[in-house]
Amino acid sequence: MKLPLTPLDFLTRARRLFPERVGVIDGDVRRTYTQFAERCDRLAHALRDELGVEPGDRVAWLCGNTAELLEAYYGVLLAGGVLLPLNIRLAPAESRFVLDDAKATILFRHPDQPDVGHPVRQVVLGDEYEALLARQPAELFGVPEVDEDAPAELFYTSGSTGRPKGVLLTHRGLYLHAIHSALTSSITGHDVVVHTIPLFHVNGWGTPHFLTGLGGVHVMLPKFDAAEVLRLIEGEGATRLFGVPAMIRSLLDHPDAATRDLSSLQQVSVGGAPVGPEMLAEIEERFGCTAICGYGMTEASPTLTRSLDKPGEAPSTARRATTGLPMVGVDVRVFDDDDVEVPSDGTSAGEICARSNHVMEGYLNRPEETAAALRGGWLRTGDIAVVEPDGYLRIVDRKKDLVITGGENVSTVEVEHAIATHPDVHEVAVVGVPDERWGEVPKAWVALRPGATLTADQLVAFTRERLAGFKAPKHVEFVDELPHGGTGKIMKHELRQRG
Amino acid sequence: MKLPLTPLDFLTRARRLFPERVGVIDGDVRRTYTQFAERCDRLAHALRDELGVEPGDRVAWLCGNTAELLEAYYGVLLAGGVLLPLNIRLAPAESRFVLDDAKATILFRHPDQPDVGHPVRQVVLGDEYEALLARQPAELFGVPEVDEDAPAELFYTSGSTGRPKGVLLTHRGLYLHAIHSALTSSITGHDVVVHTIPLFHVNGWGTPHFLTGLGGVHVMLPKFDAAEVLRLIEGEGATRLFGVPAMIRSLLDHPDAATRDLSSLQQVSVGGAPVGPEMLAEIEERFGCTAICGYGMTEASPTLTRSLDKPGEAPSTARRATTGLPMVGVDVRVFDDDDVEVPSDGTSAGEICARSNHVMEGYLNRPEETAAALRGGWLRTGDIAVVEPDGYLRIVDRKKDLVITGGENVSTVEVEHAIATHPDVHEVAVVGVPDERWGEVPKAWVALRPGATLTADQLVAFTRERLAGFKAPKHVEFVDELPHGGTGKIMKHELRQRG
Repeated sequence: MKLPLTPLDFLTRARRLFPERVGVIDGDVRRTYTQFAERCDRLAHALRDELGVEPGDRVAWLCGNTAELLEAYYGVLLAGGVLLPLNIRLAPAESRFVLDDAKATILFRHPDQPDVGHPVRQVVLGDEYEALLARQPAELFGVPEVDEDAPAELFYTSGSTGRPKGVLLTHRGLYLHAIHSALTSSITGHDVVVHTIPLFHVNGWGTPHFLTGLGGVHVMLPKFDAAEVLRLIEGEGATRLFGVPAMIRSLLDHPDAATRDLSSLQQVSVGGAPVGPEMLAEIEERFGCTAICGYGMTEASPTLTRSLDKPGEAPSTARRATTGLPMVGVDVRVFDDDDVEVPSDGTSAGEICARSNHVMEGYLNRPEETAAALRGGWLRTGDIAVVEPDGYLRIVDRKKDLVITGGENVSTVEVEHAIATHPDVHEVAVVGVPDERWGEVPKAWVALRPGATLTADQLVAFTRERLAGFKAPKHVEFVDELPHGGTGKIMKHELRQRG
Repeated sequence: MKLPLTPLDFLTRARRLFPERVGVIDGDVRRTYTQFAERCDRLAHALRDELGVEPGDRVAWLCGNTAELLEAYYGVLLAGGVLLPLNIRLAPAESRFVLDDAKATILFRHPDQPDVGHPVRQVVLGDEYEALLARQPAELFGVPEVDEDAPAELFYTSGSTGRPKGVLLTHRGLYLHAIHSALTSSITGHDVVVHTIPLFHVNGWGTPHFLTGLGGVHVMLPKFDAAEVLRLIEGEGATRLFGVPAMIRSLLDHPDAATRDLSSLQQVSVGGAPVGPEMLAEIEERFGCTAICGYGMTEASPTLTRSLDKPGEAPSTARRATTGLPMVGVDVRVFDDDDVEVPSDGTSAGEICARSNHVMEGYLNRPEETAAALRGGWLRTGDIAVVEPDGYLRIVDRKKDLVITGGENVSTVEVEHAIATHPDVHEVAVVGVPDERWGEVPKAWVALRPGATLTADQLVAFTRERLAGFKAPKHVEFVDELPHGGTGKIMKHELRQRG
């Protein structure tokens, strides 16, 4: 029997198996899966019957991590539409570009988000949205016949280089990614997740899908705030947290971390940027849970690896601080320039490539860029890694971030790791800047912790104690804050432009 | 990116990620996944290059749960063949029927199994098989281009009624069943499974597939023996056990259960026949682990439900003794005669029906029986169940086992449950026998525990204390042993024939 693979199955399962479970919490709102599913049905009715959405139409959302956005993950798909969640950190001009490029037919906008000044039909969340849902029939919106290979969601990459590109993900790809993610991380219906990762970043690492299907609990968080996250962990008994390093850092540094009861936490997954074993050990000690790393990209739905302990081998924080092992359902290989796998020796570097049903169909209307990204049937991530003898990947750089100085390759990640171990450093990014003698030299952009008095000379000396001299930054610039993208990633291209 | 879903991915994953893990243990043999995968490759080379197996050919195995049978799950598929594992409890004439019906091109036979007297080409495991593998090239057998909708495995149903029927399962169906099973039961690569369930019974509930892909450990058990199972749990640190009630009963009753260290056990899954909460509680107390029930059938790959605790609700042994909730990836409904879902009231009974990618394509060369089994796009299980208000299914009977006496429906399972609670009863089966006055009456076939002196009158009185009078058996027959099928299931049709 062949049935289409679609994330809509997760809603059906939650509705049938966990009707009384309070599955969605957003501020004072607490909804059972019955109530949640009914709102998804009403949204689907509204889209199809009142707003005229046709199969395949792109339905855009501009919204933080609220219950309404979670409804969109099911209501839009029920109506046959393709969900297009916009990054709320985009400038209005960028949002307009995305709406044009995707040919969006309607935009749902949270009142906290500015009007981006686009002629597309808009529905404002809050009173207008509630009235829209209220006037729909209460009856079940039947799950449509789905083509599993049809697009279900459309995400634009952060656009750190060039114009944003739309990444098309199918029902089949998203379903499999969710199932494989949950299996890889041993997620169960007992899990309670505070949504620190923006859902508009791909699908919040898959949680809108797998957590619903398993009957877990979504705790929505419209805007990241460390005190609020700590309060929610205690108040809702959160078991899992997914975050970028800057988020986790701010939780660790917050005074409430010492007073809140965080004993429900079982696992913290850190992604979006590499972290050292020191930080993982700090999380494990302070929060009393395990900490692992994850790695992925929009084009892969997004997860590619997780740094879980290997079965049959002793747990190791050093391993958990690597890029990890391929998740279930993903074949990850590190290729040299001739597409030959590099030896697993911990030193030979190559590009991380991936094959999986989770990998995008392609970029929307960008055949050339699609062909380049999927050359030879492998997703070319642009990330440079080595493979340890035990199979764990370790990213050493972004291809484009490599600094070549005096003929030597310098991994900016390695330099960042070294600098980040200094107790005065809050955050650091290293980029290459032009240099008459060496061609290029590393420059460190550093945000210090409050009250720190570290000087540039001291920091360079500290680095030279840990790394070869040519890897130490030749320039250090202190700033109050580093520029972050919508997902918390440091925007290195901005730093490069500053010079 | 669309890649075929195939169980072969699990071998690739084990080979690449867990090369040094000792994944297959069979007596004194301990093989890493590298060694296991190499033997699968050699088997594939032998099948294709020496034995002339063509894509789609059926390759039969007559073998207990040995390491060689596990190799067949991958080697045969690598070579493009369809694996046909025979039930070792079949009579030779039945095996010959299956080999003919399936048009098997070759038979691998363990020397412990009798020659079934069929002209098909045979390879005997042991010296002949080892010599065959030894003369193959050591090189990797590349994973072939697979059509995910092509058959991968073929199992014959136990044939409790009529002639055995071949059940065709595809690469896609088996892959999804394995992934969904592992997710439903929270299996990880740290799991160590003693293979008590015969792998020739469907695929041993999916373990040959998911355990390999996750890097867990297979402990082979050629023939069920309680003392040996207890020894292996202690010796290999088994974490999970899947068994039919008779197996688990014999483990509980064995004197070694008190002296072996069974602390590694985390979960025991009981399937194949209903069990009461008393038995689950006994398992949990004696083995110090959780105990759940599972339900399925060959036509569904096989798992349909598991009686796991529901998220957000208090654990309950009574619930875990039900038939359970649908596993991930399966839509299970209980339909009345008009295909309308029965109310979830714990009393309205209907037939369990299922829709899933795991459900068979059909019976081999049996279009009429296929159409009947899959009528209206639902697998008709023939099992009668009620749905509790909390959604848990409870099987009350096999459709064909229902006893109708004086116009009243009697669930033989209910009567069996009642009788089984008597401390003198080892095992019981209830069937309907013709009766002039009532049309049909329940008859109990009972095996007593050693030394018990219970009489038929005492047992009937005991039952009447617990159930309505018309449900108590009108006849009781004591026997030394009840007839069991290949998977431990009681062969009720034999009892019916005995009258």
